[in-house]
Amino acid sequence: MRFGRIATPEGMTFAVIDDEGTTAKAIAGTPFTEPEYTGKEWALEDVRLLAPTLPSKIVAVGRNYADHVAEVFKQSAEHLPPTIFIKPSTCVVGPGAPIKIPDFATGVEFEGELAIVYGVPCKNVKASEWKSVVRGVTIINDVSSRDLQFQDGQWARAKGMDTFGPIGPWIETDLDKFDFENLPIKAHLTHDGKTETKQDSNSNQMIMSIGEMVEWVTASFTMLPGDVQATGSPAGTAVMVPGDYIEVEIPGIGSLGNPVERA
Amino acid sequence: MRFGRIATPEGMTFAVIDDEGTTAKAIAGTPFTEPEYTGKEWALEDVRLLAPTLPSKIVAVGRNYADHVAEVFKQSAEHLPPTIFIKPSTCVVGPGAPIKIPDFATGVEFEGELAIVYGVPCKNVKASEWKSVVRGVTIINDVSSRDLQFQDGQWARAKGMDTFGPIGPWIETDLDKFDFENLPIKAHLTHDGKTETKQDSNSNQMIMSIGEMVEWVTASFTMLPGDVQATGSPAGTAVMVPGDYIEVEIPGIGSLGNPVERA
Repeated sequence: MRFGRIATPEGMTFAVIDDEGTTAKAIAGTPFTEPEYTGKEWALEDVRLLAPTLPSKIVAVGRNYADHVAEVFKQSAEHLPPTIFIKPSTCVVGPGAPIKIPDFATGVEFEGELAIVYGVPCKNVKASEWKSVVRGVTIINDVSSRDLQFQDGQWARAKGMDTFGPIGPWIETDLDKFDFENLPIKAHLTHDGKTETKQDSNSNQMIMSIGEMVEWVTASFTMLPGDVQATGSPAGTAVMVPGDYIEVEIPGIGSLGNPVERA
Repeated sequence: MRFGRIATPEGMTFAVIDDEGTTAKAIAGTPFTEPEYTGKEWALEDVRLLAPTLPSKIVAVGRNYADHVAEVFKQSAEHLPPTIFIKPSTCVVGPGAPIKIPDFATGVEFEGELAIVYGVPCKNVKASEWKSVVRGVTIINDVSSRDLQFQDGQWARAKGMDTFGPIGPWIETDLDKFDFENLPIKAHLTHDGKTETKQDSNSNQMIMSIGEMVEWVTASFTMLPGDVQATGSPAGTAVMVPGDYIEVEIPGIGSLGNPVERA
């Protein structure tokens, strides 16, 4: 099942999106319980999709794809293992919302990633139990100012500033339909009217598995319903400039597209 | 005026605490508006003080005291300027609540710091205007596993795990009573029944002023009411072990004390 959040002429609501991605059926509560339909239904083209979750935090695992570690850090993953960083709730935007780049954030790159959305409050979850605490999966673009990332040392500003956390288009709850060890991840960048596929990788390049990441993250942090865990970016990240459009695509979920603007 | 949050036999509420720190008068709303008293009043010894704010995020400025940069990073502040990191809402605990150290978090140190609490949603605030967006000041103990901090590179886990963000005892809103360029900050560690003053510094050691930090932080992050900005730790941080008790003291605010336990 696909849960989205939509802006309608009657206000904001969570909704169930059909598999064709054409209609949204409003629900009374949140995506964390069985859906209670209100009876309101919208054509998706008549509403605006918002970020499908309102996380209290995004816990992200960095350096989780060997190919990306090599391209960005010029080192082997063996010498530079995965690390954890946090993106705050205020960086989250939905599908279609602009990524706004201020003057001081130079070298801003996209990073298309699989994201998991927690469904229950949890701590100290075993790797093998990860699906029991996760409501579903979605896509995150871990937008990063590569210059600020290295200048600051800490990644909070480079990756956490307003609009640097596009999430969507919806939460897919049917985890069994995915082979998480063989899931394609692509990112297509449109620049000057020309679209190129920049990221074209697969979750089989992950260093830590999703279960291992859940166990690692929940050993330190209580995760709350709606909280997002980003699972790392594969290789192929590249600079975006105002006027560009970036679309991240994961089969079985869909695609998350955002224009790039000057803040 | 001092705003606290208290657990009473009748539930949780925000309250105005008197200057002697002996009584709590319950208010109907939050600390972000003029207080509307409910008429309920408690002796402070009959209730439990909780963290006085429920931040959506803590944005912290690290390496903001030259003496602390020298002791931890073995470099001069000139070569290692201040940096920004994020502590998530789930690390926050109140006065008296235990700091719980898991086995894998070694070298856990206290860092007593002045914290500001934002009062309005804001972005791009000028340094000279900082008091207009801040509701008040409080104390934060930026608890840090020094080993994880250097092992991970990113500080999210070392400084952001559950219970590593004690805040309190209350929010002091009368900013005019402070000289923020000459404010003593102390931390007293009790170990094996013996109390020693470990941090004994002053905000006159800050590299960036509070206003400069507000301008820097709000250039990247929208700050929301209740969000906390930590202003950096002075020198004197030291390792705490289970059984210890750590108390951070700032004149004009009060003191924030927490026991240390094994998680």
